[in-house]
Amino acid sequence: MTQASICTIGDEILIGQIVDTNSSHISRALNSTGIKVTRMVSIGDDHDTIVNSLEAELQDNEIVIVTGGLGPTKDDITKNALAHLSGTETYRTDDTQLQIIHDILSSRGLALLDINIAQASVPDTCEVIPNRLGTAPVMVFRFHEDRFGHPATLYSLPGVPFEALGAIPDVISDIKAHFKVSDIHHRTIMTYGIAESALSKMIESWEDNLPADMHLAYLPNPLTGVRLRLSIYGGIKEEEEARIEEQLKLLKPVLGDSMYSDHEDTLEGCIGSILKQHGKTLSAAESCTGGMISALFTSVPGCSEYYLGSVTSYANSVKENVLGVPEEIIARHGAVSSECVAAMAEGVRKITGSDYSVATSGIAGPGRGTDEKPVGLVWVGVSSEKGTETFSFRFRHDRKRNIERFAASALNTLRIKLVNELTR
Amino acid sequence: MTQASICTIGDEILIGQIVDTNSSHISRALNSTGIKVTRMVSIGDDHDTIVNSLEAELQDNEIVIVTGGLGPTKDDITKNALAHLSGTETYRTDDTQLQIIHDILSSRGLALLDINIAQASVPDTCEVIPNRLGTAPVMVFRFHEDRFGHPATLYSLPGVPFEALGAIPDVISDIKAHFKVSDIHHRTIMTYGIAESALSKMIESWEDNLPADMHLAYLPNPLTGVRLRLSIYGGIKEEEEARIEEQLKLLKPVLGDSMYSDHEDTLEGCIGSILKQHGKTLSAAESCTGGMISALFTSVPGCSEYYLGSVTSYANSVKENVLGVPEEIIARHGAVSSECVAAMAEGVRKITGSDYSVATSGIAGPGRGTDEKPVGLVWVGVSSEKGTETFSFRFRHDRKRNIERFAASALNTLRIKLVNELTR
Repeated sequence: MTQASICTIGDEILIGQIVDTNSSHISRALNSTGIKVTRMVSIGDDHDTIVNSLEAELQDNEIVIVTGGLGPTKDDITKNALAHLSGTETYRTDDTQLQIIHDILSSRGLALLDINIAQASVPDTCEVIPNRLGTAPVMVFRFHEDRFGHPATLYSLPGVPFEALGAIPDVISDIKAHFKVSDIHHRTIMTYGIAESALSKMIESWEDNLPADMHLAYLPNPLTGVRLRLSIYGGIKEEEEARIEEQLKLLKPVLGDSMYSDHEDTLEGCIGSILKQHGKTLSAAESCTGGMISALFTSVPGCSEYYLGSVTSYANSVKENVLGVPEEIIARHGAVSSECVAAMAEGVRKITGSDYSVATSGIAGPGRGTDEKPVGLVWVGVSSEKGTETFSFRFRHDRKRNIERFAASALNTLRIKLVNELTR
Repeated sequence: MTQASICTIGDEILIGQIVDTNSSHISRALNSTGIKVTRMVSIGDDHDTIVNSLEAELQDNEIVIVTGGLGPTKDDITKNALAHLSGTETYRTDDTQLQIIHDILSSRGLALLDINIAQASVPDTCEVIPNRLGTAPVMVFRFHEDRFGHPATLYSLPGVPFEALGAIPDVISDIKAHFKVSDIHHRTIMTYGIAESALSKMIESWEDNLPADMHLAYLPNPLTGVRLRLSIYGGIKEEEEARIEEQLKLLKPVLGDSMYSDHEDTLEGCIGSILKQHGKTLSAAESCTGGMISALFTSVPGCSEYYLGSVTSYANSVKENVLGVPEEIIARHGAVSSECVAAMAEGVRKITGSDYSVATSGIAGPGRGTDEKPVGLVWVGVSSEKGTETFSFRFRHDRKRNIERFAASALNTLRIKLVNELTR
């Protein structure tokens, strides 16, 4: 299997000011092309470090993908290191990229500065893949097999995530044209509400009976639940996919309601699909989740077909005056109560005219809350013409994580109501 | 300066299913302790790879921090590799961690499984720092200077981000007790609305006059704007901080309104501080941003002091019926218009009774929109008793990024109104 390494350059990553998201996008693209990613490395903006590290990666891998170190205010450290590594000191200007730089700046009403023009200058040893989304071009350095004992290619991509992402399809095409790639077949099963260790116990006998060439990975995530990834390297696409499908058929009854997708869909995506399919509409009333549930619903393209809107009733006055929650409910039971989320869910359904609604009220923190209503407690209400139900969940995290988990458990509660009322 | 390397273990990172956020948290903690992070490496769950990579990192660094490879469903690959690396084959059970595992599972109503108990088993060559937030303990391996030519310590942390984060303070204490640490002094200046290249032009002469031992880094981020990080290594805390302060005094007039914080505050944090200080309240009306602005406001602890709530009026019917936007405004100008966001901002201020409000309506995509209203166009309205103003902005990204930029530019628009009306 062709092997690749991904290398990010930039002091900003080493000092922890920036989280590297590029490597994960790039490795996903490489993996689905059947290229094995063996390492990811982050190094600083230093000439010798860059040269030595990239040489080591090229020694071990046929493909090395570099991102970063190319911003307009960066020194030319990365470019000089790449020039040195490829045995040149001479630069040329890439006219296509220069035109793009010119177009981008003028469309933004900005003047063309010297530091912008300099971005179109590249070592004369490289080929250029133009970057239409930004100013720094993709540089491709091909090394003869005499150099590292095998043919090797280094791709240098801009560090801006949006631009790096945009360059991936062109890089993958180039890789397919120059390297032997084998296929990888996989399916990801999404589950929610069962901890990793309990899940592994639950599916133990199914897992033990998997064919030897099928690999199962557990990918826990507090917001999407544990994902189960089943994969096979090589083989014929149709045959291997049919074999995976066969295993899924055995797994589904074991997982029951805790499985929500066998195609990497999100909870909000599933909710949208069911609503669209049945022509129903949705609204939300949020307190502790503060708008996050609504933001998740609207992250799905095409959500305007079923999503009407929401009220974030952070203050009790908004719960009463906008959502119509009776004052005595809050006075008697408090805002974090079964009664209050039920009234919120019914209230938002009434004022928006939606078929379904979900409501949350909880204590995100910081602090400890009270014995009866501790930090981490959330009440979730779900409502439709068939009735309103409420549930409570308890988490033990900080404010940010509690809010995220409140939102995820509200989405899962709503999903189960939709599945029960619309699909059975 | 003491040098450190951070190493994450796990196939899930190499296949791109998980973004490594631990390394960035750990490197921030190390940096502010005056430890220089020289490399970050991600490798797969393979015995030889783990042993060889960690050996190489220990060769070059006094401190190596490892995360991942320790989940309950993982094979014991990482632990075996660490045992091998430290020259043992024998394990012991750590009673403190076993008790924690027992407590955590029973508080969640879960049974203690064999795979849970196994997590308290560690190579007998390591010290344990108990992990009170999860089941896998922190393991500390100390290597004599004969082994790598310098004393070296390897810390193995759990991979779950919440647990890794929780372990950092204990690890830093241990590092301070065993290594010579020097101080790093830095300040981060937050700017919004000026592109990196234009900003570097704007502050060029200030930057050229910086003392040689002060380092300036540009950290662009589309959501928070470009951060400028000014740092000095070593020296006496009070003296160096005074020298940085002196430079800031020169920089501030150059940056003007585009600077919003010199203490790494967020836009939503700044807005909260101004409102709190002046006893004013806030609400929001969102269309295209779908709840994200409200979620940002409520991400600030203590926001209930000034934040009342929001309406996400995704459907026009909600704009009309809940926010009271006149039907003829939408009929004549459309929902994405100056007139509509003005009416939304005034409407939400009225129904919530807030002093200030912000409203958005735009076209996030996907698709192209129309010539007059292209994808990426957003109208922002800000309202107070002193009046309502509207602004439009244009971005050129995909749905997700457009929504994020819409929200950030709305927050900045509101911030400038608050600065002008309350602090001048």
